[in-house]
Amino acid sequence: MYHISKVLAISFEETLAQVIQALQAEGFGILTEIDAQMAFKHKLGVDCRPYKILGACHPKIAYQILQLDNKAGALFPCNVVVQAHADGSVEVSAVDPVVMFAPIDHPQAETLAREARQCLQKAIAHLGADRAVLATH
Amino acid sequence: MYHISKVLAISFEETLAQVIQALQAEGFGILTEIDAQMAFKHKLGVDCRPYKILGACHPKIAYQILQLDNKAGALFPCNVVVQAHADGSVEVSAVDPVVMFAPIDHPQAETLAREARQCLQKAIAHLGADRAVLATH
Repeated sequence: MYHISKVLAISFEETLAQVIQALQAEGFGILTEIDAQMAFKHKLGVDCRPYKILGACHPKIAYQILQLDNKAGALFPCNVVVQAHADGSVEVSAVDPVVMFAPIDHPQAETLAREARQCLQKAIAHLGADRAVLATH
Repeated sequence: MYHISKVLAISFEETLAQVIQALQAEGFGILTEIDAQMAFKHKLGVDCRPYKILGACHPKIAYQILQLDNKAGALFPCNVVVQAHADGSVEVSAVDPVVMFAPIDHPQAETLAREARQCLQKAIAHLGADRAVLATH
């Protein structure tokens, strides 16, 4: 399992706003935002459901990882996917930094990755009022 | 090894322009660009050498991977780092899609990842005139 996911019964836009707020509260900056639905429509002419990829970066952790391995930016940032499903639910999936940074050959990398994972887990935990959470995995 | 890298004896800006052109020639769109030097200066007040992370996406391959696993966007896009070293050389490091997509639990994912790797390898091969290439690894 390479992601931390939660399924919510709130709108796509509201979920997106909650995700951004929750990430910022845990020290992440949102450096990138990819609208995959729009990109696939534009490039391939295919229709997809709403699908956004937010690139979240925890500057202190990212900086420390780069001191261990200057190529590690190839694995940045921590992505968080927000996607609408056919049944109307919205799913949030944050990449697991421990899996993502596993290829870095340095003993301290896993410690930092675990720290980043904890921050992402806390951000995901904030999402949705109790009744809005359909599943967590 | 999770990256395909090349060290060049040309300027940072020229390398960046060559990388973008080479990626586009191989079918990638550049969806994101992170200026890590600026981000670390702004967020942490630290001085770094020029370091940019380009997020490259091959729409056809990306779309097919998403059909196998709708959370795979958490691993997108394929990042290409361009960084300046203290000795004046500039290094380009593309993430290896085979390593990046390894956590996807589907037999076809590796085939698609190998296709993406081949495209990135071709793009990297285009960089620099012969005399400008210091190392490839």
